[in-house]
Amino acid sequence: MTGGPASRVDAARLWERHQRLARHGALPGGGVNRQALSAEEFAAWRELIGWARELGLTAYTDAAGNLFLRLEGTDADAAPVMTGSHLDSQPTGGKFDGVYGVLAGLEAAQVIAESGVRLRRPIEIVAWMNEEGSRFAPGMMGSSAFTGAAPLERFLPVRDRAEISVEQGLADLAAAFPDLPVRALMRPVAAYVEAHIEQGPILEREGYTAGVVTGIQGKRTFRVTVQGVASHAGTTARRERKDALLAAVNMIHALAASTRDAEDLVRFTVGKLDVSPNAPSVVPASVVFSIDLRHVDSATLTALGDAVSTICVANAGDCTVDVVELTTAMSLEFPGEMTELIRRCAKGLGIATIDIASAAGHDARFLHAVCPTGMIFVPCKDGISHNPLESANADDLAAGTRVLVDTLIELASA
Amino acid sequence: MTGGPASRVDAARLWERHQRLARHGALPGGGVNRQALSAEEFAAWRELIGWARELGLTAYTDAAGNLFLRLEGTDADAAPVMTGSHLDSQPTGGKFDGVYGVLAGLEAAQVIAESGVRLRRPIEIVAWMNEEGSRFAPGMMGSSAFTGAAPLERFLPVRDRAEISVEQGLADLAAAFPDLPVRALMRPVAAYVEAHIEQGPILEREGYTAGVVTGIQGKRTFRVTVQGVASHAGTTARRERKDALLAAVNMIHALAASTRDAEDLVRFTVGKLDVSPNAPSVVPASVVFSIDLRHVDSATLTALGDAVSTICVANAGDCTVDVVELTTAMSLEFPGEMTELIRRCAKGLGIATIDIASAAGHDARFLHAVCPTGMIFVPCKDGISHNPLESANADDLAAGTRVLVDTLIELASA
Repeated sequence: MTGGPASRVDAARLWERHQRLARHGALPGGGVNRQALSAEEFAAWRELIGWARELGLTAYTDAAGNLFLRLEGTDADAAPVMTGSHLDSQPTGGKFDGVYGVLAGLEAAQVIAESGVRLRRPIEIVAWMNEEGSRFAPGMMGSSAFTGAAPLERFLPVRDRAEISVEQGLADLAAAFPDLPVRALMRPVAAYVEAHIEQGPILEREGYTAGVVTGIQGKRTFRVTVQGVASHAGTTARRERKDALLAAVNMIHALAASTRDAEDLVRFTVGKLDVSPNAPSVVPASVVFSIDLRHVDSATLTALGDAVSTICVANAGDCTVDVVELTTAMSLEFPGEMTELIRRCAKGLGIATIDIASAAGHDARFLHAVCPTGMIFVPCKDGISHNPLESANADDLAAGTRVLVDTLIELASA
Repeated sequence: MTGGPASRVDAARLWERHQRLARHGALPGGGVNRQALSAEEFAAWRELIGWARELGLTAYTDAAGNLFLRLEGTDADAAPVMTGSHLDSQPTGGKFDGVYGVLAGLEAAQVIAESGVRLRRPIEIVAWMNEEGSRFAPGMMGSSAFTGAAPLERFLPVRDRAEISVEQGLADLAAAFPDLPVRALMRPVAAYVEAHIEQGPILEREGYTAGVVTGIQGKRTFRVTVQGVASHAGTTARRERKDALLAAVNMIHALAASTRDAEDLVRFTVGKLDVSPNAPSVVPASVVFSIDLRHVDSATLTALGDAVSTICVANAGDCTVDVVELTTAMSLEFPGEMTELIRRCAKGLGIATIDIASAAGHDARFLHAVCPTGMIFVPCKDGISHNPLESANADDLAAGTRVLVDTLIELASA
């Protein structure tokens, strides 16, 4: 039975939909800036909902700003099988990160619906709210609130750079889509499968069109606030200064040294750093910077993360420093039944796969806590992601979608 | 003859005017954010022009956005004696930096006018455009263009963070003050005296109410642009990264070490640093930071400044770096005739002075190139400046103004 609907996957249509969604938040250089709960994301929602309704799917939302597109099964009361990812992007992001998971889900629903197959369980394509965490920190708010990993209330007061809160963003969303039914958070989910570009070089290098994701690398993130005193750059002697930027530089310099491993497995990034008052002739009064620390091995991640605060304090000089841990996500392994199912579906389609661990975080992390979860990776060009140059091959995207189709059919038939 | 008008200086009135101008751009914490060519600065202009016109002074501007308030002398063709400073502030500045020089000039013109003294030369109080350089870099654009040190055209394309150019700001100014006559740049000036808070701790510590400024410490400023490649914080191996922030951190760390002197005479500041795309889970693609380097000794300043580019390149790793020098201002010494005149006027008023070198830069630097120039310092509380806590004593401000009155009378009588 498997193989029928999957053969209807249309690579050109799938590619075209990627190009059309990329218009919402398009950057002059070719990339995308589509922030969570922004007008650009709402425009992408609108286009996506339009496509889904043409296929007979029903659109829902929930209190956390997630979007669900539902293909009914024969048993309306059965918990749905979910598939999807996210539509928000990094400030200088690409056209595929997140979007692929949503559009692969839509393509899968379309070929299943059009082939006349009736499955027991509903299939819901989901676009999770704020996966990237670049407008509102931390990321994965939607999947986190949906699964109950964190109460939605914790995210509502979070503000973006323009002082707009998540609560306000969700109110904007509700106002923009007044006709969408709002369903409950923490609904039962039968299974979750997320398709995603790899965001790394392995599949391309090894020559595979699909990867069976075995788990997700652990990650700890921190916000470091360094407080000094603003003073005149020309008149204040070095010994009288409390230079918040120089203290931050010393901290980052020491953190980079302490996380430098010969095996090159530690991922240490300071991606965001803001200076105040940020004027050329004023000794900086304060600096706030982010730390993103990842490692496949949980014990190593624990040890490195636990040292962050000590290293910052030791390098603060005459400034004060406050270190807050925002995310603590240890490495996780998807259940063998899911990886085995995906591997088997790919094999049935003649698509060779390799097992691969995800170095990036995904919403699948939170779904993993509430239902059997798996992920399918497809190659991305040169392994580049979170960059306007991010690209992928239309046939690879289609191949990954075919694996998704058969996986969903199996899961929704159970 | 000197002593008469000076005795009319009204400390309460002078203080009150500082408080009134501080409302334009007032910060919640008590300081001031009044950027060059902003609506807040225009409001301060309006209030200042109102006061000046009540005293019979005439207001002018010029193509560089400088404001002149002119008290006529008996010889309308004689080059004016100028005094003043600036009204723009740092983003988190105080109420006295710059404003004092302008208001001391206004107070001086008022007591001279009200005492009925007629002097040969006109006295012009000037508020120079963009001394601070925090909205538009570099600073001192107004005095630089006025004196011909740099052509105005060089500054017109400079843009602020909101992409508004100096040219647009000057057009806004012209639109806001359509009735102000526009006088030529590079008019002859007979002499220039600038009163200013010290912005350092010496006068307060030594117990003097006025300082005779002997010269201005040299300064070199740079803009460093580090170019890397944006990539995913979770998937990109350290050896594959071109992390612009980590490269910038290494540069600043090395620059701080190379400028660290036992005598604590070097002033090295990175006050402004901007990261792009500035997102927590993206390896930074680029960083732009400022360097402000000062030293009283010109040979040392030359050597330290000349090493900046080499140190940046040596620490760039796999990134590229571009270093542009924005300001090259060697230490300068005001002419003995001016320091002697100020010293003598103070002595005549019974005000004890000490000689003091200015560690901060001032518009007087550019006037020094075109006419006899001097400066009068008054103490500021704890030496703090470029900070909302910046404060001064009303009696000290008045004492410095009395010295200014007699200095101006002497200069305008010549």
